[in-house]
Amino acid sequence: MPLNEPLPTAELEHQRAHFPDGLALDCGAVVAPLDVAYRTYGALNAARSNAVLVCHALTGDQYLAERHPVTGRPGWWEAVVGPGKPIDTDRFFVICANVLGGCMGSTGPRAPRPEAPPGELWGTDFPNITIRDMVRAQHKLVREHLGVERLLAVVGGSMGGMQALEWAATYPEMVHACAPIATATHHSAQNIAFHEVGRAAIHSDPDWRGGRYWAEPGLVPAKGLSVARMVAHITYLSEEALTRKFGRRLRGAPALTFLEDVFEVESYLRHQGSSFTRRFDANSYLTITRAMDYFDLAAEHGGDLAAAFRGTATRFFVASFSSDWLFPTEESRTLVRALNAAAANTSFVEITSDKGHDAFLLDEPEFHAALGGFLRGAASRLKI
Amino acid sequence: MPLNEPLPTAELEHQRAHFPDGLALDCGAVVAPLDVAYRTYGALNAARSNAVLVCHALTGDQYLAERHPVTGRPGWWEAVVGPGKPIDTDRFFVICANVLGGCMGSTGPRAPRPEAPPGELWGTDFPNITIRDMVRAQHKLVREHLGVERLLAVVGGSMGGMQALEWAATYPEMVHACAPIATATHHSAQNIAFHEVGRAAIHSDPDWRGGRYWAEPGLVPAKGLSVARMVAHITYLSEEALTRKFGRRLRGAPALTFLEDVFEVESYLRHQGSSFTRRFDANSYLTITRAMDYFDLAAEHGGDLAAAFRGTATRFFVASFSSDWLFPTEESRTLVRALNAAAANTSFVEITSDKGHDAFLLDEPEFHAALGGFLRGAASRLKI
Repeated sequence: MPLNEPLPTAELEHQRAHFPDGLALDCGAVVAPLDVAYRTYGALNAARSNAVLVCHALTGDQYLAERHPVTGRPGWWEAVVGPGKPIDTDRFFVICANVLGGCMGSTGPRAPRPEAPPGELWGTDFPNITIRDMVRAQHKLVREHLGVERLLAVVGGSMGGMQALEWAATYPEMVHACAPIATATHHSAQNIAFHEVGRAAIHSDPDWRGGRYWAEPGLVPAKGLSVARMVAHITYLSEEALTRKFGRRLRGAPALTFLEDVFEVESYLRHQGSSFTRRFDANSYLTITRAMDYFDLAAEHGGDLAAAFRGTATRFFVASFSSDWLFPTEESRTLVRALNAAAANTSFVEITSDKGHDAFLLDEPEFHAALGGFLRGAASRLKI
Repeated sequence: MPLNEPLPTAELEHQRAHFPDGLALDCGAVVAPLDVAYRTYGALNAARSNAVLVCHALTGDQYLAERHPVTGRPGWWEAVVGPGKPIDTDRFFVICANVLGGCMGSTGPRAPRPEAPPGELWGTDFPNITIRDMVRAQHKLVREHLGVERLLAVVGGSMGGMQALEWAATYPEMVHACAPIATATHHSAQNIAFHEVGRAAIHSDPDWRGGRYWAEPGLVPAKGLSVARMVAHITYLSEEALTRKFGRRLRGAPALTFLEDVFEVESYLRHQGSSFTRRFDANSYLTITRAMDYFDLAAEHGGDLAAAFRGTATRFFVASFSSDWLFPTEESRTLVRALNAAAANTSFVEITSDKGHDAFLLDEPEFHAALGGFLRGAASRLKI
């Protein structure tokens, strides 16, 4: 499939909730109408008390426990969500929504621009959004569309963990249990810097066309988006994981000139970059990375992180991974200290793993056992 | 100065040694003729015994202790090299050569291509080079051109440290003392991956023109090279250094749309990227990063790192910096273990610093005292 093929996502029919009045955002703008694309797994019980909301990460989407409609690959969290899995769909009603600003059916830069000629999309005129705006959109889905008044749990890793924390801070009465995983209460200067490299790579691609690539059928800034994905991908892995996967293995013999593809890690990264461009929208990437960079839960509460959780009845399960250098354990400890200061019911586990940030997506039995135990405990307290 | 201005370096008259017969490279090719551009500071003594060779890092050059002829800024190691400084030009004859493959006067992709029509440069047909090839070119400068048969010391940080190690391994009889700083005996998978992102960004820039941008006056792949520099620059700093410099400070108020330059760290990185394009050649960057990626001293000695130094009479001073995550202290420990196994006279210091990899270039009094002491000790054993 050539790089400049149109995004197949554009033609997909996603399951959606439609809100004609839209959503008021932190930046002061109103996005209307608002669509929230979502998937559910399992059945809502009669008491409507067994709903678990899973929040996805930067490049994830709502297809977490089924074949992905674009890539044909398994859902991104099938290791964790399914019958008999830690998030047990035999017992829980699992909801996952594509984030506001995303490109898998929720309103974002790829959505038609209201009150504009047909074919015009939001593009780079899509307003600045925050993690809290994403959570507000999910709140409309959960409360207004699905009629769920209280979530058994909100669970998420990485940017999904930021959303889980924002849910607990913004709608504490709706969140019985909260599991922020491999995440932080604010985005670090280094993480902002890595995002900026990715954004600069997209902006530098002439096919980005100042953000209006979508106006030309089939055009995407594939090279810039691919470089953005490559640099991000490195931050998701540990040095150990990269070394184990590839070490310094050469692909074939060293060449006479320096242009050739030489190390296996290089061809792997190039593949990661180019396959990403077939499923993700560049302007969505710009929008969502910016939302992550803005995230600073303490700043939203007068500089006092504990104030975000004071008086909460939510139970927390915080998990980090020892080789995660994008969201290091120290950032989870900062969260746990604030939760303790707010007298919140909190458990914390650092999982020993050499898989880096991506460990939360992978086969990590200790993590799965701990998360499953936390959710079973939370459910049994509600007699589910 | 607009981004696409021609490189001022092209017009500079550098001090050079010229070797018509050229140099045989590890890849099997011969580069002929060979020019090695260099600078010296201080005076060679009558015994020709006080020469200290300083090897520069990836984007450094020979102008280490004087105003830089392109940028007008101080030399990159004025904190360390000068009268009364740790590398004391009142006492030592300091030599620094632009590396083979570089763009400040030594033979590399920007050099005229031999036996080709006027105006044709090597470009991407410049052969694959290694760190050992760089060292062989310096060896010709030191021995044939400057008539120095033994170096008091070879000193270098980062890629300069790789060269210092290669000097000690390849020409042990010529190296009385060796100071590899903030370096490693091989390039890690993660470091190769970061380099590959930079190379992909350059390749993606249409102004790179498949490597032939130089054929069009004034054209440089400024956007790609700028992104490459941005990602590299992040790896040179620690999270602490980035946070101290910028924290999460916003430039002005958050904007309504997501395109604006928002965090200070972003504008800093963009500045770093664009100013780099005015002094560095993109094809040189491709060549030299590849040479670093190939570097694996153990592999050159049958997989046995200690074999690189067995029987050596060279004295070693190994230094690392605690917050350097590009060349972590653990990699210096690996080197020290091999030196110990080879019964080499070795001292090792880990400097406590929160400045990351760049610390070796900055004001680090403990490091300067240790390096100065090592060189004075080495000199006094030679009665200098």
